[in-house]
Amino acid sequence: MNSLTLHPMKEIRIIIQGEHVKFATDLLDSVKATGYTIIHNISGKGTHGLHSAHPMFNEMDSLVMLMTIVPPDKVKPILAGLQPLFDRHTGVMFVSDVSVSRVDHFASPSGDR
Amino acid sequence: MNSLTLHPMKEIRIIIQGEHVKFATDLLDSVKATGYTIIHNISGKGTHGLHSAHPMFNEMDSLVMLMTIVPPDKVKPILAGLQPLFDRHTGVMFVSDVSVSRVDHFASPSGDR
Amino acid sequence: MNSLTLHPMKEIRIIIQGEHVKFATDLLDSVKATGYTIIHNISGKGTHGLHSAHPMFNEMDSLVMLMTIVPPDKVKPILAGLQPLFDRHTGVMFVSDVSVSRVDHFASPSGDR
Repeated sequence: MNSLTLHPMKEIRIIIQGEHVKFATDLLDSVKATGYTIIHNISGKGTHGLHSAHPMFNEMDSLVMLMTIVPPDKVKPILAGLQPLFDRHTGVMFVSDVSVSRVDHFASPSGDR
Repeated sequence: MNSLTLHPMKEIRIIIQGEHVKFATDLLDSVKATGYTIIHNISGKGTHGLHSAHPMFNEMDSLVMLMTIVPPDKVKPILAGLQPLFDRHTGVMFVSDVSVSRVDHFASPSGDR
Repeated sequence: MNSLTLHPMKEIRIIIQGEHVKFATDLLDSVKATGYTIIHNISGKGTHGLHSAHPMFNEMDSLVMLMTIVPPDKVKPILAGLQPLFDRHTGVMFVSDVSVSRVDHFASPSGDR
């Protein structure tokens, strides 16, 4: 593989309360996402009355952003796996297109991509 | 709405000095962006002589990255609203495509999208 | 230039160990990237046996995310310049599409874009 080639992948960012990071990283392990980055020390806010009825983020929350890069076929399993968390707690998942160097780092050896 | 569906939206990131966060969040409130995330503890630098003539970021700046997800029609109002800030202070705004779970969290109930 | 126009550019994010930031910022200077943002206080993990054989990130690493916005023609030189670092150390580079306000801040005065 030419190490100077960039490979199209999907970037997933998950913003959740710090106490639920293990749930999310266990999920990433289970779908064989091969790594992740955590950005600490973020804060978030939901506005316009979402606080009380359908809270997204409370200003008091200790939030983290969990970021991972996966082949496209892993997006749906990760979203499905997060539903039990999103059904009961604040949080959101973003997906965007990204190209990466070192695709070998992101494709699980046991994956079927 | 199927909670497993991902919805195309726009991600806006605004990098500004910490002292101007309230200006930006007030703007997001006024256009009914329904939430945002702030990444603290970042640093930035502008190079190649931009410091003196047309500074982007000074190494001494305390910077924050304000991130929000909005329907596409809110991008222009936000950019326009930031112009008075950008005219006088350092800062920049990025826009990128993103898909989100829980689109109900990002679409203002009073919005016209 | 209309300051309300958004300009297509490339966002580059480089996740590396803190001790290698100067190597990367010197590279960005050499290709005349005109600024960058550093997100500190992140952590990363490589999983599924990658630690021992082909480590991406060790949990003990002090990582930083270096982010810059460049014209498309600067992506390849930056990736090529990082290869000596990636050959010997953990790290990865992501590229994504982004639109920016204030394109004058990102286009080097001496660049040939």
